[in-house]
Order: sequence, then C-alpha cells, then structure tokens
Amino acid sequence: MALKLYDLAAADAAVRFSPFCWRARFALAHKRLQADTVPWNFTDKDAIAFSGQGKVPVLVDGERAVHDSWDIAVHLENTYSDAPSLFPQPGGKPLARFVRNWVDTQVNLPVLQLVIMDIYEQLHEKDKAYFRESREQRFGTTLEQFAQAPDKALPRISQALMPLRLTLGDQPYLAGDQPAFADFIALSVFQWAGSVSSIALVKEDDPIHDWRQRLLDRYPAALQDSNFKRSQSA
Amino acid sequence: MALKLYDLAAADAAVRFSPFCWRARFALAHKRLQADTVPWNFTDKDAIAFSGQGKVPVLVDGERAVHDSWDIAVHLENTYSDAPSLFPQPGGKPLARFVRNWVDTQVNLPVLQLVIMDIYEQLHEKDKAYFRESREQRFGTTLEQFAQAPDKALPRISQALMPLRLTLGDQPYLAGDQPAFADFIALSVFQWAGSVSSIALVKEDDPIHDWRQRLLDRYPAALQDSNFKRSQSA
Repeated sequence: MALKLYDLAAADAAVRFSPFCWRARFALAHKRLQADTVPWNFTDKDAIAFSGQGKVPVLVDGERAVHDSWDIAVHLENTYSDAPSLFPQPGGKPLARFVRNWVDTQVNLPVLQLVIMDIYEQLHEKDKAYFRESREQRFGTTLEQFAQAPDKALPRISQALMPLRLTLGDQPYLAGDQPAFADFIALSVFQWAGSVSSIALVKEDDPIHDWRQRLLDRYPAALQDSNFKRSQSA
Repeated sequence: MALKLYDLAAADAAVRFSPFCWRARFALAHKRLQADTVPWNFTDKDAIAFSGQGKVPVLVDGERAVHDSWDIAVHLENTYSDAPSLFPQPGGKPLARFVRNWVDTQVNLPVLQLVIMDIYEQLHEKDKAYFRESREQRFGTTLEQFAQAPDKALPRISQALMPLRLTLGDQPYLAGDQPAFADFIALSVFQWAGSVSSIALVKEDDPIHDWRQRLLDRYPAALQDSNFKRSQSA
C-alpha cells in the first residue's frame, strides 16, 4: 500500500512551506520510504477530516492515518524498524524531544517574523483571509506589525541558533556521527524559510550552512516529488 | 588515591556558586565517587597553576589534573566505566553537548543578570576588584547596569527555560528515564542561582521544580562536604 503525505502548499502547489511537513518528508527519506505527497491548503479542512483534526502533516499508511510530525516519526520508527533509526536508543528520543522543544519555543518565532509576509503573499487566495485572521488572533497584532525586517530578525535568529552552531562545531550531526530525527527537526526551519524567502538565515561560513547542505545532498528524495520544486535558497 | 575538586567559593567558603563546578559535583555523585572539595576564590590563580590554566573546576585524580566541567565528565566516564554512565550511548554525548550549548548561550546570561549583584556582595573581599573589572570588560557596562531586577529577568529566564519545561512534561529526566550528565548541566543553573539568591527561578507548580527536587534527593552526596551548606532556595 502506497504511503500518502498531506503537505502544506502555497498558491504554487510546488511551494511547500510547513516546517512540520518538512520533518515528515525527511523522516520518510531517512527510512527510505516513498510517499505520494498531496498539496494541501489551510482551508482544505474537509480533505483531512478523516484524520480527526485539521492540520498537516497527515500520513496515510494503509489503513492508518497519523497526524503530527512527531507521531509520524514514531509511527515510521515502529513500523519500519529494519530501516535506519530515527531515534537511535537510548538517547535518541530524549535528544529529539529537547531539540523539538528548543526549535518550537526559541527558533520558530523569530523566523516566522522574518518570513510571514512572504508566506502571506504566496498563499493560495482561498487561504489568505483564514491565515490573516488566525495569526492576527494568535499574535494579538496585524501581520504587518508582527513582521520584522531582516536587520532586526536575522541577529535574533542567529543568537537563537547558537546551540545548533556550537554543537555542529563538535560533531557532524545533531544526533552525532549520523543524522537522525533531531537533525530533521532543526533542518525543517531552513526548509520552511527557504521555500518562501530568498534571504539566507545563516552565512556561508556558518557550520550550519554546511550541515544543511550535507543533509540535502544525503536525502534527495525528501526534495523530490511529482510537483515539487527545490527550495529557493541553499 | 583520593579525588580532589577545586570549587569556586564566596567569602563564606560554604557558599559554592559556580555552575560549572556544580556540573562536576553531580557528575562525581552520579559515579558514586567522593572527592575532597577545596574552596577556591577567583584570585587564587597560583593554587591551580599546576593545571596549566586559571579556572575551576579542576579535578585532581591521582597523577592527573583535569579542568573544564565537560572534560571532567568525560574523564570520569572513561576512567570509572563500571559506574553508572554520564553519557548513555549512542545519544548521550550529542544530547549533553546540545544541552550544554543551550544552557551556556541561552540561559546563563539572563540568570547572571538576575544574580550578579548577589554574587558580587558575597565574594571574598580579595576577589571583588577582579570580578568587577573582568565582568565589566566582558559585558561593556557596569555590574549595576548589567544587573536586571527580578520583574524583568524572571520572565526572560522562564521563556529561555521552555525547552527544559516541555521536555520534562514528556519524560522524567532530560536524559530520559534516568538522569545523566545532560540533567546535571541544566541543574547547575539552579544550584548556582540558589547558592547566592533566595529568589526562585521557577514556580513550585513548574515541572522543573519537581525535577530539581528529585535530583537533589537522588544525589545527596553532591550537596555535602566538610564545609558546604545546602543551597538556599529549593
């Protein structure tokens, strides 16, 4: 039975910009699994109603529907246990959890402030009112006020990325000698921003830049599907 | 051969306030090793000149002198390999490295801004000029200007601690089901602040509060030595 991944898309269905969907894409590639990705817009709630909720990524694996990028990774790990591990034990899940909680609470916000208007402009027309309303309610301000110019946002992002930068000075991947789900969680930030913006989050001499490039080279399958274009900035 | 740990002390030699020394103390306790701790002041450079540098912690283990809390943990792990592991493999070192880099770049600064005047007031008289001069040079401002009042510092600290808080919602220790060096690195923040200040960094209903208490209960040896008093705030 083919795997199917519902993947957040812009007006151009080849632009996939959800960091959480990117985590699932790299998890699939690491497990050497191919999935048909289904471009999905924010307001296509009906299309994923079968999953019992309204957000992507949603993975359909035979009879099962799994949502939430973490639960998708755990499902793949348990179901395809002969493939390379996403959570090399015993420290794999604790590391990936901590990295996830770091990205979600310290990194995603300043990155969103940098790219939110890029996202808004590239959304499918039917998604724009939903996106503006839901985000303005969440952040208590207009999208335009929430957005930060690169000269303000980039130094904050660079400071927030310090733990990743320093760790990559000591070892090639966050998970150690070999990449695992912890790496894909951090990588998702760059795939997300790079899919909608040409502004690089880090300089070319940053160890993070090389690490990202090594991961993209290693998992070409994560970047490919029938209607998918490579992210705009390396 | 007895182990000896040079441990940063205040005017009251029972007050030990270096977060890096706390990491070494808990690493020793985890390895079920007893060390004689030697209270050390910032300006006692001659006393540790044998280590080839001027900072504590310095661990003397027989013929060897090891400095830097990370290198001390690695030394203990390699030398006392039958004792419980500080870095359960394969993910143990990557996790501990990432947690170290997170604490050192995201957490220690706002905590230092909260407690720096408490530290200064409790320093040995002979250390005060050294401390003021070296820190004012490092931060480019006076100690008084660098310091932040609790109403400003505590919300920043609480936000910086989000990755720890969320991770402890999913598992009892940072390292997973059992504590390891990653936990002691994060714990060192609270032992440091608690040794000089009575202001609690987290509320009693915070999962971090319980985690700290469980660690203190588990490693009473880390809190004891001939001239050591328990940290002031739980």
